Amino acid sequence: MSSSFYAPETPSAVKNAKGLHLITTLTPNGRKAHIYLEELKDTYGLEWTTSLIDLDTAEQKKPWYLKLNPNGRIPILIDNTHSPPHVVMESSAILLYLLASIDKNHLFGFADPIQQSQLTQWLIFWHASGQPIQGQYNFYRRTRVDGGPYAAQRFRNEVLRVYNVLEIHLSGRYTGSPREYLAGDGIGKYTIADINAWVWIRTFRSIELGEDEVEKLPYLAGWVERIAERPAVGRGLGGDYDEEVHPELLIRTD
Amino acid sequence: MSSSFYAPETPSAVKNAKGLHLITTLTPNGRKAHIYLEELKDTYGLEWTTSLIDLDTAEQKKPWYLKLNPNGRIPILIDNTHSPPHVVMESSAILLYLLASIDKNHLFGFADPIQQSQLTQWLIFWHASGQPIQGQYNFYRRTRVDGGPYAAQRFRNEVLRVYNVLEIHLSGRYTGSPREYLAGDGIGKYTIADINAWVWIRTFRSIELGEDEVEKLPYLAGWVERIAERPAVGRGLGGDYDEEVHPELLIRTD
Repeated sequence: MSSSFYAPETPSAVKNAKGLHLITTLTPNGRKAHIYLEELKDTYGLEWTTSLIDLDTAEQKKPWYLKLNPNGRIPILIDNTHSPPHVVMESSAILLYLLASIDKNHLFGFADPIQQSQLTQWLIFWHASGQPIQGQYNFYRRTRVDGGPYAAQRFRNEVLRVYNVLEIHLSGRYTGSPREYLAGDGIGKYTIADINAWVWIRTFRSIELGEDEVEKLPYLAGWVERIAERPAVGRGLGGDYDEEVHPELLIRTD
Repeated sequence: MSSSFYAPETPSAVKNAKGLHLITTLTPNGRKAHIYLEELKDTYGLEWTTSLIDLDTAEQKKPWYLKLNPNGRIPILIDNTHSPPHVVMESSAILLYLLASIDKNHLFGFADPIQQSQLTQWLIFWHASGQPIQGQYNFYRRTRVDGGPYAAQRFRNEVLRVYNVLEIHLSGRYTGSPREYLAGDGIGKYTIADINAWVWIRTFRSIELGEDEVEKLPYLAGWVERIAERPAVGRGLGGDYDEEVHPELLIRTD
């Protein structure tokens, strides 16, 4: 790698990494990458290295990091097998990059372009219409700032609307064909479109929705449980990416 | 096409369409599809048919439409060359579908997977971090509902942050390499990643930002002007998709 690709102050764990290097933390978007990498470990024996960003020192807002991702957000994936290294920002784009570069047998995607288009649609639907809304809802319901109650209600309604779109899709309300996963013919197949949405929706019972509202989402609830049972999903959520369990993975520059 | 694919009340302009059929209206997301289709007409001679949805009767919230797109939003693209027809929702996913199915020479994308990954990242960045925020900002600055001023400020700040991410990227502030377009080696190449963001950002001078704030975005301003000059872009914005110019393209079911 050229000396100008990284900044002088870029942590050595990043600069000296070989192969795939993930910079992440334990957030829903971080977990998208963790889970798919763990699935690829189980199926292809994939190896990679991980650094945990120190949010306390806001490393992700410093010039060394903005040089890699001007959006200043985690996760990013750096593929050091390319020269210069290829950096991928945006959690959904990381999933798509791993699908194209590692998952050559399309185990978590499709060779068929029509089914792959279904995957892309549901991936983008969630990333664009689901998670920004759920993120705003979480902000407003937690902070109770002036003006909060109105906004919390607005985003709460929209979270329910988006969940209902997924319920319509999974239940086959208008098509007559219920399905188990978001994309693919028939009942569908577990893909990165599911991983992408699941990390956010898995906690849908604890975001202050009413019992009666949750009860109207039986297909979504079944989908949440089905995916939770996967070993790679369990590993991706947890300890291997926790700075309290692995403080040696933390990177900071001051 | 099977009789069960469309509902009995689906408008005949939709049911009887051949080839590519676009259902749209004159919104930023609609214009994404218009512009790329017009670019494909100029380069490949692509033909398609268009229906304009009647928002006054909320056609997009009716069962016949939800059967095609459970999210109840426009635009959608229906590819009738497949059996059953393949429906694409989510404007970014429509761009990606046209890129894969029509744009075989990668005129508005890349054959190279690394550059295509750049395209995907900026496409998703805008669709996930840009347009939902700008949409919320527009809502709050226009409605002035109770609680609005705080929320308007919140989303205003975030719009400026996102615009600044694009300014960092285009100016090469941290990489030392200015660029003309969002994705691609060197100065980049005009692609669907640009179309995707441009339809929203083109009006950045009229969304109540300060003169001093706009002046800090010279590279973004140059990018907006550069793309505005394209003939296909001009056509995609306008009259051919306007229900007042072409009322015969309107579809409604009651």
